[in-house]
Parts: sequence; structure tokens; C-alpha cells
Amino acid sequence: MKDLDDGALYEARSHLLSLYPAEIALLLRSLPIDYRYQLWAIVAPEVMGQILVPLQGEVRIGLIEHTSAQDLVIGANELAPRDLADLVGDFSAETRDKVLRKKNDSRLEAALAYDGHTAGGLMTMDVLTIRADVTVDAVLRLLRVQKKMTGNMDSLFVVDRTNHYQGMLPAATILTSDPLMVVSKLMDVSIAAIPLNMPVSEVATIFEHRDILSAGVIDENGLLVGRITVDDVVDVIREEADHAILSSAGLDEEHDLFSPVLVSAKRRAVWLGVNLFTAFLASWVIGLFEATIDEIVALAVLMPVVASMGGIAGSQTLTLVIRGLALHQISSANAMSFLFKELAVGALNGIVWSVVVALIAAAWFSDMPLGMMLGGAMIINLTCAAFAGVMIPLFLQKRGIDPALAGGVLLTTVTDVIGFMSFLGLATIFLLA
Amino acid sequence: MKDLDDGALYEARSHLLSLYPAEIALLLRSLPIDYRYQLWAIVAPEVMGQILVPLQGEVRIGLIEHTSAQDLVIGANELAPRDLADLVGDFSAETRDKVLRKKNDSRLEAALAYDGHTAGGLMTMDVLTIRADVTVDAVLRLLRVQKKMTGNMDSLFVVDRTNHYQGMLPAATILTSDPLMVVSKLMDVSIAAIPLNMPVSEVATIFEHRDILSAGVIDENGLLVGRITVDDVVDVIREEADHAILSSAGLDEEHDLFSPVLVSAKRRAVWLGVNLFTAFLASWVIGLFEATIDEIVALAVLMPVVASMGGIAGSQTLTLVIRGLALHQISSANAMSFLFKELAVGALNGIVWSVVVALIAAAWFSDMPLGMMLGGAMIINLTCAAFAGVMIPLFLQKRGIDPALAGGVLLTTVTDVIGFMSFLGLATIFLLA
Repeated sequence: MKDLDDGALYEARSHLLSLYPAEIALLLRSLPIDYRYQLWAIVAPEVMGQILVPLQGEVRIGLIEHTSAQDLVIGANELAPRDLADLVGDFSAETRDKVLRKKNDSRLEAALAYDGHTAGGLMTMDVLTIRADVTVDAVLRLLRVQKKMTGNMDSLFVVDRTNHYQGMLPAATILTSDPLMVVSKLMDVSIAAIPLNMPVSEVATIFEHRDILSAGVIDENGLLVGRITVDDVVDVIREEADHAILSSAGLDEEHDLFSPVLVSAKRRAVWLGVNLFTAFLASWVIGLFEATIDEIVALAVLMPVVASMGGIAGSQTLTLVIRGLALHQISSANAMSFLFKELAVGALNGIVWSVVVALIAAAWFSDMPLGMMLGGAMIINLTCAAFAGVMIPLFLQKRGIDPALAGGVLLTTVTDVIGFMSFLGLATIFLLA
Repeated sequence: MKDLDDGALYEARSHLLSLYPAEIALLLRSLPIDYRYQLWAIVAPEVMGQILVPLQGEVRIGLIEHTSAQDLVIGANELAPRDLADLVGDFSAETRDKVLRKKNDSRLEAALAYDGHTAGGLMTMDVLTIRADVTVDAVLRLLRVQKKMTGNMDSLFVVDRTNHYQGMLPAATILTSDPLMVVSKLMDVSIAAIPLNMPVSEVATIFEHRDILSAGVIDENGLLVGRITVDDVVDVIREEADHAILSSAGLDEEHDLFSPVLVSAKRRAVWLGVNLFTAFLASWVIGLFEATIDEIVALAVLMPVVASMGGIAGSQTLTLVIRGLALHQISSANAMSFLFKELAVGALNGIVWSVVVALIAAAWFSDMPLGMMLGGAMIINLTCAAFAGVMIPLFLQKRGIDPALAGGVLLTTVTDVIGFMSFLGLATIFLLA
């Protein structure tokens, strides 16, 4: 166990005081485990909750395990119901009970009931509501008396007597309007409220496209139940992007950069195992042509070229489709147009590069027919790669499987198998005859 | 040229009226080119500018080419200086002059001068400023008279007599405070203003970590020059994520899903060419061992397994490092700890899977020594892959080359070369002796 000396600890402590909780979270996440827990030990319990919320998976759980139940209760006390609902899921049953008993908040109970992947899980429940028939002056007086409006509230919500959502009244409107005006004449009804069960990725798209700062959330009866602000949406977008990048390598967001070697190795082993199956499938295909390779050993030298070029071309198409699906740019309506275009691109690049590789191979082994087989296999594989690059993610999406996770492995399987089979197959038919 | 019939056009037109500009932009981007221009023809010139702004590269330029200069001038007229400055770069010189002559706005000139990748390019210049020594009541009266505060302004900026930034006054504070209070007692000085030349990715990190809705932008003398709101930051985060995903496949954001086949094929050909070099390098390595393969053809069958497993393991490490660098989780301070951890993970998985592949290969070819060579090569390649996965992106970053773009190709080159060389090398030394 490495130790920070006293001077370093003192410096760390004073540095911590100048940081925001999310910044301390980043710092902790970036530290090797020994240092991480030493730094965590000097964090004040009051901010522990706010630091744990932006952390995920292993990092968060490890820190919780290194914290006393008493400190966790203090830290949790400072959190908004939504954040607390997210966090207590990682507490031990005992600590969770302590926290929940202390809070005893109906909002917390509601927050615990919502699905984290929907608007309900994203929203906060503290909304300020007003009626449509009051004047701006009455609103101003109410706000001054209540003192409940906080910095990140850019709007009030207008509801009827039974709490049905009617519209929003931006703070800017209150501030610039004649105090005698009635709210109903001023409120903004152009921003539709968001249904409780809308998936978070759709919520993010709405915020992005409409450049809004906040929106109301309504239940199935149109009753206002909460609000979502754009800073929550920022986190959603970052997490989605993270997920897309990590899952293409078989990784997930739960991963701690500095988790113990055994834990990391075990996680990654699964992905390697899946790919081992693919690799042996390719080997099996090559094995079918052992006799051919035994005759012409140059085939063994050149065969990775076809497979690798197919993999590269296919992954370009695959990446465009996965991104297109995520951004709702590709759907069944335009998939066919896109497929035809990609097939044409694949065939065209296949032809161009097949000439290049054919000439290189022919010159290298002074064997023109060999070069022609290589070029022919390349055209076949690049066209098939384009087809697979479009169809695999569409198929996976339809089956409810994340294309970002499984797409790459399946594509490589296809391009390897077709690459080796077309090259060695063509060679067997035409060169051994 | 395919044509939409009159009924479809009528339907499209009424559908368009219900969409936000950014939503129309998404729709246009998702349409094959013929349909795209037919739909564009029925868009009102007044909203054309707002639709073009969120579009990029080829899609935007194509639409501009299909629009009369007169319509572009009308569309541009509705835009904020910042958006206009971004857009006119894609106009023809003649149209640009027309637009700029018509606007003749000092703010636009300033916007044209800022670098798009810094806070200056991201900010908007319409800020509302007040002095610290006035009362809330005076602020309220000023806002009502000016009527310049708009919906996305959540705060006013407090400046001194010479426009030096001093702090922010959130709308919520104005609304909840006693009208007789003085601004200096109420203003929020905790949110530091953002320097004009701060890179946009740093700006995004600040907004994310601090959950703020807006911040002031200051020049080198501390003078307030603009403000950035979180909805601009949302676009930055989305673009960065897009860039990371696309560049790993050698693609860029300029790409139009439906660009003509020739244009697409040309763009992708470059990347295929780069990878062809890698593929032939691997072939060259195999070629060095032609004599060995000629003796033992099973080597040709099994050799892709070592290369492919190395590529997979290395790309997991590479992905973690590239993401870690982007999120500022990995730096020179902790890179060594991470390297040692990854080397241990690579070696451990190498040992585990080497046993598996050795047994499979030994059983398949009834040749235990062959299996052992395969297993040995696997341990070597997975350890080297971990080393390359950490060092390549760190090296590229230091050299100012985007690791997301070049990292994958370089890594595959290393894992292919070392994979083939270690397996065929071990076999040459031990099996041919």
C-alpha cells in the first residue's frame, strides 16, 4: 500500500476545497485505487453524496464500501430525491433503510418508483406552479414571499385548478412584462410537456432540436409531475456517447480504469472469448483449403489482405449506420436507398483497389493469375462488407440487440469468412485446375 | 430523377409547418438527394438560415447550391451574428458580400473574427449588463422598459463602469429578493467567467461539472464580451462524441449519408489505402516465413487467431485510453500506473486464452508442440497489444495527432506484425529444428 505523505495530504485537502463535487468525482476516478481511498478519507461527509452521484459502477461501489454508514447518511441527506433514488440502489440494505427512514419523503418514494431510462427518472420534482388567471404582480409577490425559486429555474409552470399542465412562464417574461398583465396572455404554450415514460434519448433529442432550457413532465392524465432541465440532458448525451464508444470494444461504463487486475482481466476475457470463436471460424475456413495452400504458399502470405480490407470497408459502413440509427437519420424508410448506395461504393472501391492489389501481388510473386484471384476476391469481399455493414445493425436493432455492442464482431466474422473463402476458393478453382 | 407526386408534396408542406428548424434539418439530412432538394424547394426562405445552421459539410453546401442568392439573403437576415458568421463561410463570395452589406453589424464583424473552436466562436454577444450599486427595484424597472431580456437568458451580468466582469445576477434572485436590496449583495461571484480563447471542449467540461445554465465570456483584460448558454454546449458535446465515433473508422462529420456514390467512394478510398499499407506490411512479415509455412501448412490456418486476438485486446485498451484522454481522466500523472495495470491484464488474459487455444490447436492438428507455439505467441501478442494500446494514443496526443483517428490503424499494424512474427518465428525456431 502506497501512502501519500502528510505534506501531500495537506495540499490535497486545501485543493479539494476549491473544487466542485463533479470535479472531485473526476479526480477520484482518475486516481489509482490506493491513492483514491486516501483522498476519499479526507472528503467532508456533507459533500460525499454529491460526489458519488456522478460516479458509476465499480468506482462508486468501491467508494461506498470505504465509507461508514454514518457518513453515507450525512452525505445522502444533502441530495435531491432523484439523485438519492439513484444512489441508494448501491447502498447496503441496512444503510439504505437508515437513509430512507431519515428522509421519509413522499417525493423520494416517487423517485424510487420511476424507471431511470425514462423522463420520470431524469426529472426533478421541485416545480413552481402558478395559475393562468393571476397577474404578473401577484406572481412577483408570491415569489418574494415563497423564496422557493432557485438559480436553475428559468421558468414557472402554469397549471389549472387540478394541476393539469397548461404552459410555461419564463422568468424573462415575468421580468419584462407590465405587472398588471394576466399570466394567461403571457404564457408560452409552444413547448409541449414531456410524457413521464418517454425514453431519455428522445428527451435529449427534443432539447437539442428545440434549444430549450427546461420543460415540464406530465403523467398519462396530463398532470404536471416534474421538470427536466437542460443540464440533466447534458449528462444523458455524454453517457450515450460514452456507451457507443465503449461498447464497440465490448466495454461498458461500469468499468473503473484502475480496478484490480483480476477484475479487469475477467471482464475483458468474455469479449476475447467471443472473438476467439470468430477467429477459429476463420481458421476453419482456411483449413478447408489446406491442400491448396500446400500447393501455393503465396496464398497464405496474401490472404490477410482480403480479410483486412473487407473489415475496414465494412466497419466504415457499419459506423455510419449505427450513428444514423442513434441520431434517427436512418430508418426503414430510407434504408434501401442507403443500402444501394453503399453497395455501389463498396463495389467501386473494390474494383479500384483490386487493380492495385492485383498489380502488387503479381509483381511480388511474378504471378499474374495469382494477382487476379486476389483482386477478384477483393471486389467480392468489399461488396459483401457493404451489404453486411448495412444489414447487420438493422437486423440487430429490430431484434432489440444493441448494434454498437454486437455489430463489430458479427461484421468481422462475415468479412473474415467471405474474405478467406473467396480468395482461397477462387485460387482452388482457377489456379489448381 | 424521382418525383414526389402533388399529394405527397402537399402533405410534406403541411408537415413541415409543424416542425422546428433543427427537426427539418434532420429530415433533410435523412433524405436521399433527389427527395431532399424537392423538399427544400418548398421551405420558406425565412427559415432557411435556421435550417442550414445545424447542418454540416456536404449536406449544407449541397442545399446552398440549390438556393437562389435572394432566398439566402432573406434566410440569413433572421440569424444571430454568431450563427451567421458560421454560415456565410459556405456561401459564394458574391452572396456573402450581399448578406454582409445588408447586415452591416459590428457584432457580425466581431463574430467573423473569432475562432470557431474557442469560447469566442461559441458565445453570443447579446448580454444584458447592470451595475453592482443599483437596487433590485431599479433593475426591474430597467428590464421592463428595455424589453431586451429573452427566454434563454437566465441571468444578467454585473459589470463595473468600464465593463469589467464582476458577477452574475440570476433571474431567480431578482424575482425572489427584496426590491430594496442592492445588486452587489445579491450577485453570484462563484461562477468564474470564461476566457475568450478557451477551447470549446474545456468550456463543455466546465458546464458539465458545474451544472450551470450560462456563463459570461471575458477578453484578456477581463472585459465582458459575450455569454455562453448550456444549449450551445449541448451541440459541442454531441459533435465531439460524433467525431470520436466517426474518426475511429476514418470518417468525418462532413460526410453526407446520401452523397453521390463517386464522392463517397473517393472519401473512403483514402482510408482503405492507408489500411492497405498495413495489410501488406503484415503480408510481408508472413512472407519472411514462407519456407516455414511450406513445411507446416497448419501454421497458415492458425496464424490469423494470434493476430485477431491481439487486435481485439489492444483495441479495448486503446478505447479506454482515448476516452480517458478525452474526459481528462488519463494524463502523464497516472499513465504509468495505468500502463502497468494494462500490461498485467494483457499478460493474464494472454496466459488464460493461450491455454485454451493451445489445447484446441493441439487437438485439431494432433500436434502438441504446435499448440504450445500458438499459446506462446498469444501471450507475447496480448502483452504487446496492451503496451501499444496505452502508448500509441499518448504518443499521438503529444504529437498533436488525433488519437481517435490514427490510433486504430497503428494499433492493428502493431498487433498484426507482432502476432504473425511471434507465431511464425516461434514455429521456425522450435518446430523446424
